[in-house]
Amino acid sequence: SLARRCHHRSTAMLDMPFLPFCAFLGTLGLLCVAMVGSWCQHWRGGFSLDGSSRTFNWHPVLMVTGLVVLYGAAALVYRIPNTWSGPKLPWKVLHGSLALGAFVLTVLGLAAVFHFHNSQGTPNMYSLHSWMGLATVLLFSCQWVAGFGAFLLPWAPAWLRALYKPIHVFFGSTILMLSVASCVSGINEKLFFSLKNGTTAYKLLPAEAVFANTLGLLILIFGVLVVGALARPSWKRPDSDSPDSRQ
Amino acid sequence: SLARRCHHRSTAMLDMPFLPFCAFLGTLGLLCVAMVGSWCQHWRGGFSLDGSSRTFNWHPVLMVTGLVVLYGAAALVYRIPNTWSGPKLPWKVLHGSLALGAFVLTVLGLAAVFHFHNSQGTPNMYSLHSWMGLATVLLFSCQWVAGFGAFLLPWAPAWLRALYKPIHVFFGSTILMLSVASCVSGINEKLFFSLKNGTTAYKLLPAEAVFANTLGLLILIFGVLVVGALARPSWKRPDSDSPDSRQ
Repeated sequence: SLARRCHHRSTAMLDMPFLPFCAFLGTLGLLCVAMVGSWCQHWRGGFSLDGSSRTFNWHPVLMVTGLVVLYGAAALVYRIPNTWSGPKLPWKVLHGSLALGAFVLTVLGLAAVFHFHNSQGTPNMYSLHSWMGLATVLLFSCQWVAGFGAFLLPWAPAWLRALYKPIHVFFGSTILMLSVASCVSGINEKLFFSLKNGTTAYKLLPAEAVFANTLGLLILIFGVLVVGALARPSWKRPDSDSPDSRQ
Repeated sequence: SLARRCHHRSTAMLDMPFLPFCAFLGTLGLLCVAMVGSWCQHWRGGFSLDGSSRTFNWHPVLMVTGLVVLYGAAALVYRIPNTWSGPKLPWKVLHGSLALGAFVLTVLGLAAVFHFHNSQGTPNMYSLHSWMGLATVLLFSCQWVAGFGAFLLPWAPAWLRALYKPIHVFFGSTILMLSVASCVSGINEKLFFSLKNGTTAYKLLPAEAVFANTLGLLILIFGVLVVGALARPSWKRPDSDSPDSRQ
């Protein structure tokens, strides 16, 4: 039909090579890491391990670096066309290692905020941000352990891998969406906590607020682009077992 | 291969009929609407149009009802198997009408918070929540106008529809993710604003905080399930022009 032919022509027009997109995404991810670090260094007093708010500052930096940027890199490994031929094991190891790195940074990020709260006598785990964030980290730990058990240990049966794979893929995107939602609620909350006085009140939109709001929007865009790239049929591993890449 | 055969058996095991899922999702959506209404009625003083915090209370109720639940219903119309045969126009009209209803509630929800801020002399549009929320509503309005122009007006050429359709689908899921992230940051922010004194401080986790945190998690689950359902290949309209449903 005409529509079908038009469709082919127009999707070809929209088709973008993965690697330039990836370079853009990498730049955006590094920008997010640089901005969260600059925010904490320039406006929030820098970093330390003494239990003060300078210990808290590790929390946003480690979470954005681990649970958003490094996690996003891990999620996209199988979209690199080089991974589609040759042995799969090295890429599985890379995927699992990047995810493990993301998980380690995430746990350190949690340790930073618990240490800060405990030093200050503030309760832990009361805000919606903390509930959502902890749920995200718990899902991520289950995802990593189940992925390791099903895909890297040699004795997992083929039927179990096939059964678990769509679940792993679904939670891969879900955890990233939850982690991005946790980041923006955390940045919003931190700005309300920190910007209260006279001329630097959050509602007067001082430079710090514009900077950190912009960081929040960039994290959202990063997350949307990663989830969109993961869902894009033409970027999926063609020999994959998922039904939508069998044509 | 064995893996391929296993894959077929295991995806058959995971395959769920859409309509029972939809009934569950509808129940969850109604529960979210009921909970946000009860929160505002029971703990936040109810509703009015006088510019007080009782005017603000329309904001969370209208946003959750419009930009999450009704929007989700609009997004899922083409996943109903009944829409896959027969003329498409009535379903297009239903999709566009539900989205328009969601958009009207959203604009009323914005009006409520602007009216509240203006009555109280509070600045508008300073928090990350407000930036993200307004970006979501602006994207939604572009999405509705472009969708109406491309898919409902009779004179849009086939090549334009084919070109725009994957963009409309991508932004459909993206806007819902952004709107869910806006909701949770808004609930988190409202609880910090409202629960400040002695025994009802947010950090002491009073009943209201547990209730509204739970609401936030349910909204997240609703959003994740809708985005997951939209992405599920076996639930897509089989005659659709998208490449992943041509088998």
